[in-house]
Amino acid sequence: MLITEILKKKRDGFELNKDEISYFIKGLSNFNVSDIQAAAFLMACCTKGLSSKETTYLTYQMRDSGEKFNFAKINKPKVDKHSTGGVGDKISLLITPLLMAFDIAVPMISGRGLGHTGGTVDKLESISGFKIRLDYEDYFNLLIQNGAFMACQTDDIAPADKKLYHIRDVTGTVESIGLITASILSKKLVEDLDALAMDIKVGNGAFMRDLSSAHQLAESMAGVARESGLKMRIIFSSMEQPLGYKIGNWLEIEETMESLNGQYSADIRDLTLKLCSSMLIAGGLFDNELESGLELNKVWDSGLAAKNFVKMIEAQGGNLELSKSKYENYPEYEIVSDKRGFIQQIDTLYTGIAGIMLGAGRKDINDKIDYGAGIILNKKIGDTVEIGETLAVLKSKDKSLFDSPAELLKNCFIISDDYKKAPKLILDEWVI
Amino acid sequence: MLITEILKKKRDGFELNKDEISYFIKGLSNFNVSDIQAAAFLMACCTKGLSSKETTYLTYQMRDSGEKFNFAKINKPKVDKHSTGGVGDKISLLITPLLMAFDIAVPMISGRGLGHTGGTVDKLESISGFKIRLDYEDYFNLLIQNGAFMACQTDDIAPADKKLYHIRDVTGTVESIGLITASILSKKLVEDLDALAMDIKVGNGAFMRDLSSAHQLAESMAGVARESGLKMRIIFSSMEQPLGYKIGNWLEIEETMESLNGQYSADIRDLTLKLCSSMLIAGGLFDNELESGLELNKVWDSGLAAKNFVKMIEAQGGNLELSKSKYENYPEYEIVSDKRGFIQQIDTLYTGIAGIMLGAGRKDINDKIDYGAGIILNKKIGDTVEIGETLAVLKSKDKSLFDSPAELLKNCFIISDDYKKAPKLILDEWVI
Repeated sequence: MLITEILKKKRDGFELNKDEISYFIKGLSNFNVSDIQAAAFLMACCTKGLSSKETTYLTYQMRDSGEKFNFAKINKPKVDKHSTGGVGDKISLLITPLLMAFDIAVPMISGRGLGHTGGTVDKLESISGFKIRLDYEDYFNLLIQNGAFMACQTDDIAPADKKLYHIRDVTGTVESIGLITASILSKKLVEDLDALAMDIKVGNGAFMRDLSSAHQLAESMAGVARESGLKMRIIFSSMEQPLGYKIGNWLEIEETMESLNGQYSADIRDLTLKLCSSMLIAGGLFDNELESGLELNKVWDSGLAAKNFVKMIEAQGGNLELSKSKYENYPEYEIVSDKRGFIQQIDTLYTGIAGIMLGAGRKDINDKIDYGAGIILNKKIGDTVEIGETLAVLKSKDKSLFDSPAELLKNCFIISDDYKKAPKLILDEWVI
Repeated sequence: MLITEILKKKRDGFELNKDEISYFIKGLSNFNVSDIQAAAFLMACCTKGLSSKETTYLTYQMRDSGEKFNFAKINKPKVDKHSTGGVGDKISLLITPLLMAFDIAVPMISGRGLGHTGGTVDKLESISGFKIRLDYEDYFNLLIQNGAFMACQTDDIAPADKKLYHIRDVTGTVESIGLITASILSKKLVEDLDALAMDIKVGNGAFMRDLSSAHQLAESMAGVARESGLKMRIIFSSMEQPLGYKIGNWLEIEETMESLNGQYSADIRDLTLKLCSSMLIAGGLFDNELESGLELNKVWDSGLAAKNFVKMIEAQGGNLELSKSKYENYPEYEIVSDKRGFIQQIDTLYTGIAGIMLGAGRKDINDKIDYGAGIILNKKIGDTVEIGETLAVLKSKDKSLFDSPAELLKNCFIISDDYKKAPKLILDEWVI
């Protein structure tokens, strides 16, 4: 088989078969396929699209490019959750300790920040001592001991995805429904899951700007899930404003703990419960959301979830007290409103970008993150604001960074006299 | 400007502007653009096409990526010829010595073999001592002294094209009208030409399989030529069978000399005269083909062109006698017909591939060429053949290579009882 012939076939819009996709993806590991050939392949996938069959083959080949877990000995349903990425989205950090209270295993492999969005792995790395890179034995023991772990993709997990991902990032080939599907699900299929809850973000702070493109992605993922026998529940949730009030790595660990201890915003509580219920129902522990919701509320309000959070962090070497002291006395900058009225809109994409500019994310692959940097929102959509009132507070180790993100963020708030309701949070739900 | 934004714009089918194309092509030299980004760009150009404006900007930027010639001091019209590539196409080797008899300068920069087609540079390199890499001073002196030179693309000539070409070759992105146009014309515009004769090959041995795709390529090249003020005459010529009787590097040097000495096949003579006339008329030396044809016939039949060929080769260090002795006594293999009738078709693509298999071309970028290897055809379309008569003779240094190309080439000849006329040679002609 010739790599150039495979490339030409895809270029000309023909469907690749199983053998061709297998040969290509295997070629990434055995150096039969060079990086420039991979780049051309990815661009052809973006411009010509991937059929449902091609997406499935690609997902399987990427899954099989590395190690696969075997959790057969863990006699509980294995369920994970994935989000397509948002701003202030710390929901994974709340889900894990809540579900540790149930007879379910949560092997959670998360990602890093991407574009303007944050990543669970970066957030966890803001905790002193937290070990995010685990090996198979650690995974297994943590699932036995705690019923959950939180880790990052290692070199052994779908290495073909890792390679392709780095190339996509710099070649303008991230936005492809088929490639996104294969990238997400190849890693999830490695985890030996029984079920998966998928949170597809929709809105001005998400990669999917409207419900119809979110449905397209869901359709593509549903195809692979059906084919591979993975139960999946897809929640379509709004990203028209950041989730909760804090954006930034340590700030979101803080907000997670505050929320689990009873100081939560409505959107964080609602989305967390929705996704936890989906996972418990998909895992076969409950029949409906009323039952699961009652139990989840108990775990949350009793403080058990908050205790579980600390337990989980300490089991992986994290020291929350030490971290807290590290991020105290950070320089702050207040953004003050010069208008009065109701908050109509918050441009969530640019809010995310302002966070990155403060040091909370990477502008470039080699950038170092300022884990204490970020944004505390004082206002969300529907809130009233007076002239001179604080809209948001910026945090950064480096004071000289405040000017541009402050101006950018101020422009993210659209304020007018008309009353505005907060946007609907859960837009749709599919059961696959 | 962000490279990924340029890539996304092209990926999504939008037209790139002058600045974006300039930034991208300059980035190839200053390492702002990596090879994988170039590969993704090329694939996007293939799948989304290039507009006439984009093609022109790309051509100019590639031209300007290296040195430009300045032949202003040479007080003659500067005219070159380019062919899109065929099998047995040695016409450039005949044109140059014919035109050396006229008051015209021919600065000929040729290419190497590509895919199944041969390249003038490889043919010239079969001559012992021939210096194909010249510097600007050599170019200039040869134009003064002989009115012509034949050379290859050096690192100084359109280096952006060179870089992109290597990437296109391995990423399945060769077949793009816009990229082919920019690649050919960027190099031709470096040559400081007044006019160009373009031979677009059409048929089963050419990159353009039918006249309509050849017309598309011509339209694209005409756009750039008009924009840049380059006079161009485009000849559309048939590649439904090899040109002449010999295929292979030294074999084609041999056939060139035989042809100039009076032993020519009709197609070689007709196409050479047609292209020479186009160049002389485009250069303003004649008004019509009747006048130019009469003069060209004189130069050819008097033996002057044959003498000029030797003169040109020797001026660049070549030793024809030494070469001849090198390729004597080469192993041969006869392909014999087991049918009688008329030759209906010759599959020219596979004839070219059979030549490559014998060692006359490169299967891979690092392959060494066997300059004496190739094919001598005994029959062409319309000829009669008896059972047991020789169809073709293979030549190769390495006898063990004969089997596969022999079988392949035998199947290239379609023989039946119906009378068949030789295909029309000149299919169309455009004056730009």
